[in-house]
Amino acid sequence: MIRFDSDYGEGAHPKILEKLNETNMVQTPGYGGDSYCEEAAQMIKGLCKRDDLDVHFLVGGTLTNLLSVTASLRYHQSVIAPTCGHIFVMETGAIEAAGHKIHTLPEKDGKITASQIDEVCEEYWSNSARVHFTQPKLVYITQSTEYGTLYKKAEIAAIAEVCRKRDLYLYIDGARLGYGMASEENDADLPFLAEHCDIFYIGGNKQGMLFGEAIIIKNREIAKDFRSLIKQRGGLLAKGRLLGIQFSTLLADNLYIQIAKHANSMADLIRQGLKKMKVKFFVENTTNLLFVVLPLTVLEELSKGYAFTYGKKINEKERVVRISTSWATKEENVQTFLRDMERVLSEKHLGIAA
Amino acid sequence: MIRFDSDYGEGAHPKILEKLNETNMVQTPGYGGDSYCEEAAQMIKGLCKRDDLDVHFLVGGTLTNLLSVTASLRYHQSVIAPTCGHIFVMETGAIEAAGHKIHTLPEKDGKITASQIDEVCEEYWSNSARVHFTQPKLVYITQSTEYGTLYKKAEIAAIAEVCRKRDLYLYIDGARLGYGMASEENDADLPFLAEHCDIFYIGGNKQGMLFGEAIIIKNREIAKDFRSLIKQRGGLLAKGRLLGIQFSTLLADNLYIQIAKHANSMADLIRQGLKKMKVKFFVENTTNLLFVVLPLTVLEELSKGYAFTYGKKINEKERVVRISTSWATKEENVQTFLRDMERVLSEKHLGIAA
Amino acid sequence: MIRFDSDYGEGAHPKILEKLNETNMVQTPGYGGDSYCEEAAQMIKGLCKRDDLDVHFLVGGTLTNLLSVTASLRYHQSVIAPTCGHIFVMETGAIEAAGHKIHTLPEKDGKITASQIDEVCEEYWSNSARVHFTQPKLVYITQSTEYGTLYKKAEIAAIAEVCRKRDLYLYIDGARLGYGMASEENDADLPFLAEHCDIFYIGGNKQGMLFGEAIIIKNREIAKDFRSLIKQRGGLLAKGRLLGIQFSTLLADNLYIQIAKHANSMADLIRQGLKKMKVKFFVENTTNLLFVVLPLTVLEELSKGYAFTYGKKINEKERVVRISTSWATKEENVQTFLRDMERVLSEKHLGIAA
Amino acid sequence: MIRFDSDYGEGAHPKILEKLNETNMVQTPGYGGDSYCEEAAQMIKGLCKRDDLDVHFLVGGTLTNLLSVTASLRYHQSVIAPTCGHIFVMETGAIEAAGHKIHTLPEKDGKITASQIDEVCEEYWSNSARVHFTQPKLVYITQSTEYGTLYKKAEIAAIAEVCRKRDLYLYIDGARLGYGMASEENDADLPFLAEHCDIFYIGGNKQGMLFGEAIIIKNREIAKDFRSLIKQRGGLLAKGRLLGIQFSTLLADNLYIQIAKHANSMADLIRQGLKKMKVKFFVENTTNLLFVVLPLTVLEELSKGYAFTYGKKINEKERVVRISTSWATKEENVQTFLRDMERVLSEKHLGIAA
Repeated sequence: MIRFDSDYGEGAHPKILEKLNETNMVQTPGYGGDSYCEEAAQMIKGLCKRDDLDVHFLVGGTLTNLLSVTASLRYHQSVIAPTCGHIFVMETGAIEAAGHKIHTLPEKDGKITASQIDEVCEEYWSNSARVHFTQPKLVYITQSTEYGTLYKKAEIAAIAEVCRKRDLYLYIDGARLGYGMASEENDADLPFLAEHCDIFYIGGNKQGMLFGEAIIIKNREIAKDFRSLIKQRGGLLAKGRLLGIQFSTLLADNLYIQIAKHANSMADLIRQGLKKMKVKFFVENTTNLLFVVLPLTVLEELSKGYAFTYGKKINEKERVVRISTSWATKEENVQTFLRDMERVLSEKHLGIAA
Repeated sequence: MIRFDSDYGEGAHPKILEKLNETNMVQTPGYGGDSYCEEAAQMIKGLCKRDDLDVHFLVGGTLTNLLSVTASLRYHQSVIAPTCGHIFVMETGAIEAAGHKIHTLPEKDGKITASQIDEVCEEYWSNSARVHFTQPKLVYITQSTEYGTLYKKAEIAAIAEVCRKRDLYLYIDGARLGYGMASEENDADLPFLAEHCDIFYIGGNKQGMLFGEAIIIKNREIAKDFRSLIKQRGGLLAKGRLLGIQFSTLLADNLYIQIAKHANSMADLIRQGLKKMKVKFFVENTTNLLFVVLPLTVLEELSKGYAFTYGKKINEKERVVRISTSWATKEENVQTFLRDMERVLSEKHLGIAA
Repeated sequence: MIRFDSDYGEGAHPKILEKLNETNMVQTPGYGGDSYCEEAAQMIKGLCKRDDLDVHFLVGGTLTNLLSVTASLRYHQSVIAPTCGHIFVMETGAIEAAGHKIHTLPEKDGKITASQIDEVCEEYWSNSARVHFTQPKLVYITQSTEYGTLYKKAEIAAIAEVCRKRDLYLYIDGARLGYGMASEENDADLPFLAEHCDIFYIGGNKQGMLFGEAIIIKNREIAKDFRSLIKQRGGLLAKGRLLGIQFSTLLADNLYIQIAKHANSMADLIRQGLKKMKVKFFVENTTNLLFVVLPLTVLEELSKGYAFTYGKKINEKERVVRISTSWATKEENVQTFLRDMERVLSEKHLGIAA
Repeated sequence: MIRFDSDYGEGAHPKILEKLNETNMVQTPGYGGDSYCEEAAQMIKGLCKRDDLDVHFLVGGTLTNLLSVTASLRYHQSVIAPTCGHIFVMETGAIEAAGHKIHTLPEKDGKITASQIDEVCEEYWSNSARVHFTQPKLVYITQSTEYGTLYKKAEIAAIAEVCRKRDLYLYIDGARLGYGMASEENDADLPFLAEHCDIFYIGGNKQGMLFGEAIIIKNREIAKDFRSLIKQRGGLLAKGRLLGIQFSTLLADNLYIQIAKHANSMADLIRQGLKKMKVKFFVENTTNLLFVVLPLTVLEELSKGYAFTYGKKINEKERVVRISTSWATKEENVQTFLRDMERVLSEKHLGIAA
């Protein structure tokens, strides 16, 4: 079985593992009060080119989103998100379980716009009976998005501008931020994000770490006592150093971008290969997640040797499938996959064989 | 600085790290749906000598407690715990934040008794106005306890009996279960615990793993959809295999007990040494946590070279101090510490020098 | 100003107020442990023709919904509701604030169908990755609906059948149940509802009481310790008798239906009148809430003398408006309103004058 | 049966009921947006002699406490309260269910002191590991207290001073504020309370209203969007006018104080009578709640004709009993009770007969 179902199918990038081995017997205080975490936090501030940031390290994305969202809201406030937002569809109602409604907006290629957000606010604030509705206070977007697409600088700046005008916070879920930053299409770098967001995170789980996400908070109100919130939600890792060690390795020498570039180039190989075979793409993008529409008969055959993530059925005969590459994807596996795909399409009298 | 402040000051036991290295590039599905987790779960059932158990792996203790407690309670129900219980004093109100009152009972050497629990239930159920009070439904105890002491089989059996009678669940926090099981004083083995508890956990964080706790659920009502609860609280590790790999290594060949024995024997060296110096013990126990009463002047001197965990002040001049050993404690550090202690006590005209 | 904006614009039906006066100086125990509450509960069981029901009295609808929904769900479970459901759009996120996602379904005339519900369940239970989603466990519908329409017996029976099949609970919000039951269109009486629901409520706030809703629980799991839940949410009225006194008066001699019939007949007068004027109806129904589409120019004029509830804009020139009648609506006010409407439409060159 | 078990055993003071009758058919908008509520709010500001106050009206005390406490805290923050505090012992864990730990302090006659509060804060803020603990942020006290005693101006001022110094909010639960204000012992009037509290409430349930509590908020951070919070918790009464009508009647012409004085004088009759009989008092106070220690044999006899609230057993033979008077207590019932008490004590060879 060759796995293209996720970008977290292996352990850690060898350099990260090496560093964990190397530091294993060093004694440190617990809960992140160690020099590795301090070093990693400083590196992040350096990459963001500003010092007025709080940096916290967490194990996983759902808890990271949960903490970022809840720290930003009071009870009666809601978070605006696209209907495909990870917090809305993939986290077992974690945000609602923590007490907050998610106000969803229709997305286009995984993205929402400044004017959609503005409209929601106008509707709320212009309604004299608004006491009966939740108050929009936070905007949640993802970069790169759940569909592997990217917000451009102009789009983020416009959203940030609406946020300022409407007294909203802006939060970017960066579970796959590196894949986005490694794309040539991208124009939003870390300093730009740090300038325009109140809070965002750089993902490690999906980009070569054993585990880990780095939350970056600029807004002072959200930042207040954030470590207490982490602890209360069970997110303060006893051996917190493990997060510092991993992040300082990942962020050194641009390793973060390098390995994302590898994943993107593997995705591009698949993208070009499938396009030649006239496979339909559900979404166009330039990062490590591919969304294609495949006949169920083809999928049945391929599923014997390959793992994918299955999306919704388009019709009785076709389904959307997500193909993920990662820092660990081997080119030989990609080539084997493309050959198998070609063969199966041909057998089923589809694709270029048609 | 030599650290005796915790049993999670280093990375992982070398065998565990070795196994993580060895399996690093294997591809697996995410979120614990891998063969390593399956293997570790089977090992635990084997050690508990029963098959009717659900086993789940989590990263940390606070989230483990949070999930175990909340899965056991409905909104109006409370958990009974000793005043020193980790959930009451060290988790930033995580249980209350999840909606439940902790009904505390006075502890003796870290332990509570069956009759104390029975009395709480009697008080509740005999009160016709009980609708105004929370309903006791779960008993939380720790083995080994926060003071390093142990519940004996007879004590646990008596508590379990009250639980049956009063329709309570019994939960044992096993953050340091191995240190307890490795003590000669202990008579409660895993099959005994599995028989008498509705839910309990075997700690990994404090016993040689990078991170990890194994929740063992016998009660079917608590077990229901537990994985959904884990995910919702942000506790489902993307690379879940890391927990399976670590636990299957730790539990193989009795490694779990071996390394705990080492910690206990290091603690015993310190215990015997300090007793010779007539240092006062706050609590008597046989595991890896020592609680001694030291003059502030002595502490001030020792703190230059040693890290401890500081407890409450006994009076104007003395304070309780917790000294932890672990799987990683080096005998040479213990010897150095004892020599330094002797020297400092002597300088301050205390202890054997007095 | 003549008010058609709600059915709770006056105090209580005179008979209810009379009974409150009459019993004022009687001494009773607090929190509903009095004979009036007992009597009212017995009357409800009688009307439902079954004895296996728990009856609780609450002050308001939002708390009633909140308690009914939360008592039915565990943390990871969600409630299915139409997009227009009161719990989704009008309660400031109360359900989410209590920890639960609302899974909305598109409604038609305020109603959802058994097959829609079945599909949601199929999607959840057939997904092997369902641990990442909330589990549907409760169906919320309203009778009469937010659009004043009615579920027929066959529709409710079909929904109840899906609920049985899918292990879902069925809950009916009866804030305006009386208006529905008083309609000639209705075929679902109280015994039918009690048979098919796990829990439902009979509204008093909108049907002639100062305040009050009666929750009726058949399902034993939901019923358990329900009074504790009420108290915990702050819903246990100190002078609980006030609810018993009001309900026993309202339900005696069919007063409940009588006053709803009056409201419905007043609505019908308006309905027939507006239809003659060719006013467009947004929804067709037979109860006390009318939804009409009116030009903004007409509304501007009418709003000087009449209060309505304003709905969404249909286009640049028209808006949906809700017109409510109640037990207290005076026929003379209805006639005055119809004359004014005719005049305004005529002035604006609309309606029958066109 | 003559009831001395609570001060909410009857309906409403006749003047209040009269006003409800009088206004019954007036049409108003819902949810408190009516002129009666506006009038009552203005009266309260006038009585407090300041205009910078937000006033909200709620139905019951538990929800009032719940909203006041939760609006004041972020997730990781706790409320300090005496062990006898209503929120800790009588509200089914409502505060914890809403996510907050109650940090209890030992009380003396129902009261806590400024220095106790200061000590809690010192302990928290001086602990470098405080991330593991909840952060004290609010002080909850009751006036008159659960034991019917009173905080004097100097005590409240001292507590308010610690609150300022420690960045805490001060909240006073005024469920029985009127009984306190009507006592000659009292020196803390409404302007004084408004000056020293961030938020407090004037109780109506226990002082002659059918129901109702008036929350008064001075602190702008707590006040923000408070009505949204009320609605979300299900506390926004549909016919909100009922609260405005009742409060404006209660607060007019000093009726609030007058009826409390009556209750206090009835309590004093009992107090003097029982003291003559040498009945032991558990607490000394000057308001409407009496706490006496009675032999179980005496209680058994008296309980045939009188309702009390039973407190804890002092020993095998005696129990604390709470005797409440109210605005509605009749002097003839007091006299009958005193005669019966004398007779029973005499029969049991106790009291003055001894």
